[in-house]
Amino acid sequence: MPSLLLDKEKCLRNMEKMALKANRNSLSFRPHCKTHQSAEIANWLRDFGVNAITVSSFPMARYFAEAGWKDILVAFPFQPGEIESLIEISELCRLSILVDSPAALPFLNHIPKRTGLYVDIDTGYGRTGVKAENPDLIEQIIVKARTNPHLEFRGFYCHAGHSYKAESRDEGTAIHQKALTDLAELKMQFGSYDPKLLYGDTPNCSMQEDFGKLDEITPGNFVFYDLIQYALGACSMEEIAVAMECPVAGRYPLGERIVIHGGAIHFSKESLPLKGTSIFGRLVHPTKSGWTEAEEERFLSSISQEHGVMEHCGNLVRKVNIGENLLFLPVHSCLTANMMREYHTLDGKLIATFNS
Amino acid sequence: MPSLLLDKEKCLRNMEKMALKANRNSLSFRPHCKTHQSAEIANWLRDFGVNAITVSSFPMARYFAEAGWKDILVAFPFQPGEIESLIEISELCRLSILVDSPAALPFLNHIPKRTGLYVDIDTGYGRTGVKAENPDLIEQIIVKARTNPHLEFRGFYCHAGHSYKAESRDEGTAIHQKALTDLAELKMQFGSYDPKLLYGDTPNCSMQEDFGKLDEITPGNFVFYDLIQYALGACSMEEIAVAMECPVAGRYPLGERIVIHGGAIHFSKESLPLKGTSIFGRLVHPTKSGWTEAEEERFLSSISQEHGVMEHCGNLVRKVNIGENLLFLPVHSCLTANMMREYHTLDGKLIATFNS
Repeated sequence: MPSLLLDKEKCLRNMEKMALKANRNSLSFRPHCKTHQSAEIANWLRDFGVNAITVSSFPMARYFAEAGWKDILVAFPFQPGEIESLIEISELCRLSILVDSPAALPFLNHIPKRTGLYVDIDTGYGRTGVKAENPDLIEQIIVKARTNPHLEFRGFYCHAGHSYKAESRDEGTAIHQKALTDLAELKMQFGSYDPKLLYGDTPNCSMQEDFGKLDEITPGNFVFYDLIQYALGACSMEEIAVAMECPVAGRYPLGERIVIHGGAIHFSKESLPLKGTSIFGRLVHPTKSGWTEAEEERFLSSISQEHGVMEHCGNLVRKVNIGENLLFLPVHSCLTANMMREYHTLDGKLIATFNS
Repeated sequence: MPSLLLDKEKCLRNMEKMALKANRNSLSFRPHCKTHQSAEIANWLRDFGVNAITVSSFPMARYFAEAGWKDILVAFPFQPGEIESLIEISELCRLSILVDSPAALPFLNHIPKRTGLYVDIDTGYGRTGVKAENPDLIEQIIVKARTNPHLEFRGFYCHAGHSYKAESRDEGTAIHQKALTDLAELKMQFGSYDPKLLYGDTPNCSMQEDFGKLDEITPGNFVFYDLIQYALGACSMEEIAVAMECPVAGRYPLGERIVIHGGAIHFSKESLPLKGTSIFGRLVHPTKSGWTEAEEERFLSSISQEHGVMEHCGNLVRKVNIGENLLFLPVHSCLTANMMREYHTLDGKLIATFNS
């Protein structure tokens, strides 16, 4: 069966590097745990001074609260159906939630515990959030929230996810600078409420050096990185800390094709453009201490539910045997980790997750 | 939280229709259970005379064997790492496996129980399988397999998965006819071994009426169907038996955008081309007995880990409230079901799966 390998040393180096960068820039560091979804991996972050985390759902918040985390932000707009979970989890930790509309607030009228509130700000991504250019709506939310004695407005949260679509480093920097400017403006405009500025996304947190008036960063993917981050320039190939280990299911010398056991239910169906096609993973080779950089010409060019297909493998097709394991860097480590539900470290330890 | 709704009546009608078609064509019927992955749903098939099933992995075979299925084909090329599972599962049921290379056979030398063997045949899909045009290799496999007293060569298995890429009904029919011709030829050529012809894929089993010399069909997706099958013409919109129910997380009147809680970890990242873009699900509306057909103009145009985005929703954006549920037909029901791990029937019953 396919398994997800984790190079713990690389992962720790990635954690340390981001923690140092936060420290150097006087930023608090609240890593997003939706990437690894593992209490054990989250614990490694404690050695780098982390004591607050970000998650993407209430069930995930409960998992980490039960694992001992005392300061948790659920960075997904609050929905009324989650009120019971919110109440229960707020008994376990200092909980913060995200809203981007006054319509969410009435559902919070009867919460028994003090709960933090961040307003989700859209600086151009166009997914969730109040447009930064709409301070009237932001003020409505803050003013209405402050009528609830158990809601504490703590600041603004921004995920500039359009950084993933940037086609150049300059474009990424422009996206980042626009977010910094918008957020600094809001911090000044709503200064009487002393709002904190929280800002996530791994590409910008990895590549940028100017963090303006930000208070806290919330990147997630940086613990593992992946081929998408590498393509954006957010990491080096050596920093990618996870790889899929998949047995060869078939070899077809005529087409120089290798089929592995490892498909959409293992990698996820996330793809990445490369050399005019879409790829689903890139071949690496095992070394004594981990794996090599990815090969230029060997990648998964298609996947179905259980199968992964690598075409034009050259003489590799004659070298590998059925059942032999091949290693692949994943396109999107968050989704791959979510599918695989557990990690195997290079020294053979099994690490569980929220989904195990 | 998002949940996966199952219209049991539609599902039963889909099962009955395919069972009747198999019967009408004197075909055995061995449905593929990788779509639903549920012992309870598999049991519904028994009412339509089904007593043999297909699965895509050994862990799935074990799950269904423990649920009482006595005749199971693992329709994924056998890999040596699975030998222990094979031995254990062969104690529980009449097990059959798939191979497409003589290299797999030595690993089966010491199996204690009689195990069925099908040779995987490639009639043009180009994933796994021995090319139908390579009878020498097929003969090598059969002859070598027959030296193992516990291996019983039972026939040929073909998944003509390139039917999913057919751009017209005629192209689909040509793919199907090529497979029928190739398989009939092999049946004649290897007639002394009395091989059975097994053939899967939901598009061809749904749309074709000529089944040539086939003995058994193994479609899987037909129990639920989905937007891919609908786009191919394999089902009507009313036959799609599953829908995702997702709460509204945000409404953005300026862009007429609705964001739902329902993303790549719920739907999967499978997309489908529609109207010049890629879609990840199509909006339907609840009715007393299920849901309507999909709207033409409202679909998920992007998804990230937890979010689904519907753009240009017109006045719907002003009608729905945060937390209100919206329904979406999935692009690829196998992958969505695999992510969701359980079903909610329309009368409120929870149905577990292999992954629950």
